[in-house]
Amino acid sequence: MPAEGLFGQIKRFVVGEPIPSHLAHHERLSRFTGLAVLSSDPLSSVAYATEEILRVLILVNISALSLASPIAFIIATILAIVVFSYRQTIYAYPSGGGAYIVARENLGEMASLVAASALLIDYILTVAVSIAAGVAAMTSAFPQWIPQRVGLALSFMVVLMLGNLRGIRESGRIFAAPTYFFIVSLLVLIAVGVWRALTGTVQPVPPVDPMTSIGQPLTLFLVLRAFSNGCTAMTGVEAVSNGVPAFRPPEARNAAATMSIMAVLAITMFVGITMLSQIYRIIPSEHETVVSQLARGVFGGRDLPYYLVQAATMLILVLAANTAYADFPRLASILARDRYLPRQFMNQGDRLAFSNGILGLSAFAALLLVIFGGDTHALIPLYMIGVFLSFTLSQAGMVVHWRRFRGPGWRTSTVISGAGALVTGIVLLVVAVTKAHEGAWIIMLLIPIQVAFFRMTKQHYNAVASQLTLTDWHPEERHHNTVIVPISGVQRAVVQALEYARTLSTDVRAVYIDVDPVATEQIRSDWDKWGRGVPLVVLASPYRSLMEPLLEYIERLDAQRSDDYVTVVLPEFVPAKWWHHLFHNQRALLIKGALLFKPHTIVTSVPFHLAH
Amino acid sequence: MPAEGLFGQIKRFVVGEPIPSHLAHHERLSRFTGLAVLSSDPLSSVAYATEEILRVLILVNISALSLASPIAFIIATILAIVVFSYRQTIYAYPSGGGAYIVARENLGEMASLVAASALLIDYILTVAVSIAAGVAAMTSAFPQWIPQRVGLALSFMVVLMLGNLRGIRESGRIFAAPTYFFIVSLLVLIAVGVWRALTGTVQPVPPVDPMTSIGQPLTLFLVLRAFSNGCTAMTGVEAVSNGVPAFRPPEARNAAATMSIMAVLAITMFVGITMLSQIYRIIPSEHETVVSQLARGVFGGRDLPYYLVQAATMLILVLAANTAYADFPRLASILARDRYLPRQFMNQGDRLAFSNGILGLSAFAALLLVIFGGDTHALIPLYMIGVFLSFTLSQAGMVVHWRRFRGPGWRTSTVISGAGALVTGIVLLVVAVTKAHEGAWIIMLLIPIQVAFFRMTKQHYNAVASQLTLTDWHPEERHHNTVIVPISGVQRAVVQALEYARTLSTDVRAVYIDVDPVATEQIRSDWDKWGRGVPLVVLASPYRSLMEPLLEYIERLDAQRSDDYVTVVLPEFVPAKWWHHLFHNQRALLIKGALLFKPHTIVTSVPFHLAH
Repeated sequence: MPAEGLFGQIKRFVVGEPIPSHLAHHERLSRFTGLAVLSSDPLSSVAYATEEILRVLILVNISALSLASPIAFIIATILAIVVFSYRQTIYAYPSGGGAYIVARENLGEMASLVAASALLIDYILTVAVSIAAGVAAMTSAFPQWIPQRVGLALSFMVVLMLGNLRGIRESGRIFAAPTYFFIVSLLVLIAVGVWRALTGTVQPVPPVDPMTSIGQPLTLFLVLRAFSNGCTAMTGVEAVSNGVPAFRPPEARNAAATMSIMAVLAITMFVGITMLSQIYRIIPSEHETVVSQLARGVFGGRDLPYYLVQAATMLILVLAANTAYADFPRLASILARDRYLPRQFMNQGDRLAFSNGILGLSAFAALLLVIFGGDTHALIPLYMIGVFLSFTLSQAGMVVHWRRFRGPGWRTSTVISGAGALVTGIVLLVVAVTKAHEGAWIIMLLIPIQVAFFRMTKQHYNAVASQLTLTDWHPEERHHNTVIVPISGVQRAVVQALEYARTLSTDVRAVYIDVDPVATEQIRSDWDKWGRGVPLVVLASPYRSLMEPLLEYIERLDAQRSDDYVTVVLPEFVPAKWWHHLFHNQRALLIKGALLFKPHTIVTSVPFHLAH
Repeated sequence: MPAEGLFGQIKRFVVGEPIPSHLAHHERLSRFTGLAVLSSDPLSSVAYATEEILRVLILVNISALSLASPIAFIIATILAIVVFSYRQTIYAYPSGGGAYIVARENLGEMASLVAASALLIDYILTVAVSIAAGVAAMTSAFPQWIPQRVGLALSFMVVLMLGNLRGIRESGRIFAAPTYFFIVSLLVLIAVGVWRALTGTVQPVPPVDPMTSIGQPLTLFLVLRAFSNGCTAMTGVEAVSNGVPAFRPPEARNAAATMSIMAVLAITMFVGITMLSQIYRIIPSEHETVVSQLARGVFGGRDLPYYLVQAATMLILVLAANTAYADFPRLASILARDRYLPRQFMNQGDRLAFSNGILGLSAFAALLLVIFGGDTHALIPLYMIGVFLSFTLSQAGMVVHWRRFRGPGWRTSTVISGAGALVTGIVLLVVAVTKAHEGAWIIMLLIPIQVAFFRMTKQHYNAVASQLTLTDWHPEERHHNTVIVPISGVQRAVVQALEYARTLSTDVRAVYIDVDPVATEQIRSDWDKWGRGVPLVVLASPYRSLMEPLLEYIERLDAQRSDDYVTVVLPEFVPAKWWHHLFHNQRALLIKGALLFKPHTIVTSVPFHLAH
C-alpha cells in the first residue's frame, strides 16, 4: 500500500510533481517574464478604464463624452507620478516593499494592518474585475454567450487557480505569450486607428444598443465620478514593487526597469484608446465593450484582426488576475508569519506556492463574481478604495522613511514620495465621496472588521505562546499508565485492541457495560478464552446508558492515583468504502468528545481494517 | 468538571431525566390509554376520509355526491373484515404482529422486506397527512392562517417529536385527553345532527368557495377513485396489533378489546359524518373542511360548539401522528436487530425511546410537508399504497400461518384471514390503478429501492461478522511498540506529549523535519535540556514537505521489525473556544488520515488544553 493517500494522489495529479528547494532560484523572473506576470494587471485595465469614464459622461449627453480625453490625461499624469514614486520603493525595499511592509516599518502597526486589509481586498477584486472584464471582451465578440457569463467567469478562475497551485515559473511561461500578444495587438490597433484618422478614412462605428443619456446636469460631482472610474487604469501598478524578490538578480534593477516599461505601455494604450474612442465616436453599450467597438471601427468590421484584438483582450484580462494570484498568497504568508493571520497561510506547499492563500483568494473572488453576476461595472466601485488606500499609505510611509534615514538625495526622494502620497490621497478622497453609495461602503465597513480580526489573531497566538513557554515550567511527573479497553463483545477487533493495549502498560482492564444479563454471562465465558489475562470489569447500567457508567468509572480511576495517565483504547472500524461509515456506531467519536476536556486522559483508536 | 458534556446537558434539558430500566414495565398502556395512543390514527382519519370521497364525486356534479353513502358503507364493511382479521393476529403474535414479522415468518425474506418498506413509508405519511389535516381543521376555523400552514405543520411536528423523545408513558398521559375530547365531540356532533334531521330542523350549510363540477362523466374509474380516497378511513387500524407488548398484561386481551372499541367508533363516526354531509348538502371547498362545514351546519354557525369540534379535530389529527411515532422507531429497531437497517436504529436512548428512529421519521415527514406545501389532498395518493400493501401481506401471511400450524379452529381462521387478504388485495389493486398518476408512482419506485438497501445492509453486516469471527483465528504476536513523537518545536505541548510517550514504551524517538538549518540547530540545542534522554531523529526534506519524510520514516521503521506496532504520538491543541480551531494547523488530522489505512500503526493525540 502506498504511503500516500487518495488525497495525496489527487493533489499530485492536479498540481504536478514537487520541486526540490535547491531548484527554487531557477524559478525567478527575468524582465521579460516579469513584465508578463506582474504587469498584466495595470496593462489590462486599459481594456475597461476608458469605458468606465464614458459610462458616466453619457449620463449627461453625447457631447459630454469629449471630456474623456482631458480626464485621461490627468490620470496618465497621476500614474506617472505614482510609478516614479514606486521606483524609489523598489530600491529602498529590495526584499519586497508592499504597502504592508512599508507602512509597518514607518507608520506603525495600525496603519500597516489597514494597508494589509486594503491590499487583500484589492487582490480579491483584481481577480473578480479582471475575469468579469475578460468575459465581457468575449461576449462582445459572441453576444450569444452573455447568459453564461457567470459560468464562463468561474471556469476561467478555476483554470487560473490550478495553474497557480502548480507553481510560479510555469506561471511565467504560460503568461508571457498572451501578455505580449495583447501589447502587440493593442499597439497595432492604436497605430492603424491613428493612421486612418490621419488619412481621413475614419467611419463612425455603428453603435449596438447604445446607452442613452438621462439628461443629468454636468456637475463637478459627475466629472469627479467619471475621473474616479477612470482611475481603474492605475490598478495594479504596485505589483512589480511587491514582487521584487521574484526577479532574477540584480532584483531591484530588473524590477525598476520592468516598472518603467510597464508605465510607458500603460499610458500609451490608455490615452490612445480614450482619444480614438472619441475620433471613432463610440457610445458605451450594455452589450459590447468600448474596445470591441473601437476594433470594429478601426478594422472595418468583425474580421480576423477584430477577433485577434478581442482574444488578446480576453486573455490578458483573465491572466491579469494572476497578478493577484502571485501577491495575495505572498502577503497572506507575511501576515501569518507576523501572526496576524492563521498560520495555515504560512505553509509553503510542495511547489513553493502558497496553496491556502490561492484557495482563499479563489473562494472570495468566486463569491463576488456570483453576487454581482459577473458584471464589471458593478464591481468597479468596490475596487478603488482598497487600491488607493494602499497607494496612499505606502507612499506616506516612504515619506517617513526618507526623513528618518536621510540617505543621499533624501530631500528629492521625500518630495517625490510626498507628491505620490498627496495625489493618491486626493484620489482616495474623491473615490470615497463619489463611490460610497455605489458599493464602496461595503469595503469601508470590511476594512475595520478585517483589522480587528488581524489583531484578535495576534492576541490569540500571543496567549498560546505564553501558555507554551518552557521558562519556569516543569512537567508533571507521571509514570503510570492505566489503560482501559471498553468492549461491546468479544471479536477480532476487540482482541486486537486488547493486544495493542497490553504493549502500553502492565495495568490494562477491559470494561463492559451490563445492559442485558444474558449477554453479560456470554461475555464472561468468552473472556476466559480470549481475555489473555486482562481483568474484565463489568459495570452496571441502571439507566441502560452505555456512556455514563464508563465516564464514571474513568472518574473513579482518575481519583485513585495522582501519578498516572488514563488511556482509553478503542477498536475502530475502518470501512473499505467511505459510505460504510453509515453502518457503524460513532461510539468512539462520542467517547473522544466526552473525554476531550479531561486532563491526563488520552483516547487511542486501534484501526481494524474491513476488507469489504 | 462534569463528566457530561454540553450535548448531554442539552439532551437532558430537552428530553428529561433518564428512567432506570426496572421501571420500564410501569410505562405499559391500559385499554384506556392504549386507545388514546394507538387509535388516534384510525379515528382521526374520519376527519378527512369523507371529504376525499366528495372531492372526486363533485367533479361529475352535485347530485353525484349522493354516491358517497354507499361507498362509505362498502368501506365500513371492509374495515370490519380487516379488524376482525387483525384481532386474530393479536392472539397469534402476542409479542407484536406487525406486517413485517408476520410476513417474515410465513412468506419469506423478500415479502417481509416489502412489508417493512411499505410500513416505514406508511408511518412517515401518517405523520405528514395527519398534521396537514390537523392544520386544515385549524385554518378552516381561522382562514387568515392559511398562508402559514407549512410553518404551523412543522411546529406541531416538532412538539410531537420532543414529546416522543421524552418517552412513551408521558405520551399516554398527554394524548388521552385530546382523543377522548375528539370522540365525545364527534359523537355529540353526530347525535345533534341526526336529532335535527329527525325533527326536520336542518338548514343547508351556506358553502364557502365551493369546488365546482368540471362535468366529468360518471365512469366506473371515477367511482373507484372516490372509493380509493375513502379508504383513507382505514389507515392505521393495524397500529394496535403492532403495539401488543406495550399493553398491560394480559397484553393480547387488552389489545384485542382496544381494537374492537376502535373499530366500532371509527365506523360510527365515518358513516355518520358521510351521511350527515349529504343531509346538510355539503359541497367540498378549498378553504374549509367538510367536518368544519358540517359543524357549522349542525350547531348553526361559528359558536362555542363549532370551535370545540374544530379544536378536537385539530388536536386528534396532530396527535394521530403519534401512532407513527410509536411504531416507526419500534419497526426500525426490529429491522436493525435483523441487520436490515444500520445499527444506530437499535439504540435505546436513556428514556426507552428510540431516538434515531424518532428523528429519522420527523426528518422525512418534514420533507414531505415542505414539498407538498402541507396539502392533505396532495399527500393522500402517496399514502394508500403502503397502507394496503402491508395489510395484504400481513393477512396473506396469516393464511399461511393458520395452514401451517393447524391449531384449533384453523379453518375458520384461514377463511377470515383469507377474506381480509382478498379484500385488501383488491383495494391495493384499485388504489394502484387509480392513484399511480397522482403520485403513487413515487412510492412504487421507492419500495424496491428501500428493499435493495435493506439487503445491501444485511450483506455488509454479514461480511463484517465473517471478518470478526474468532473461529480459527489467532492474534498476531506483537510485543514491541516503537513510539515516535513528531515535533515542530520545543514547547510545553511537545514536552507533555513526550512525557506521555515515555510511559508507552522504552523505544521512543522524537522526529523533526529539517526545512531550515537555523531552526534545526535551535531544536538540537533545546533538546539537550528538554529531550529527557529521548533520541532526536532529524529528517531531511529536500522538497520542503513536512509529511512525506515522516511517512517514509514510518515506512522504514515498519520494515525493520515484524513484531512491533508503530505508535505516533502527537500533541494536539484543545482550544478554549471552538472557533480557535481556525488558528491551529490541522496537521494531526492530516497525519491520522495518511496513516489510517496502514496496518499496525496507531496514531494517538495527547490533548493540550489551552486556557484561553
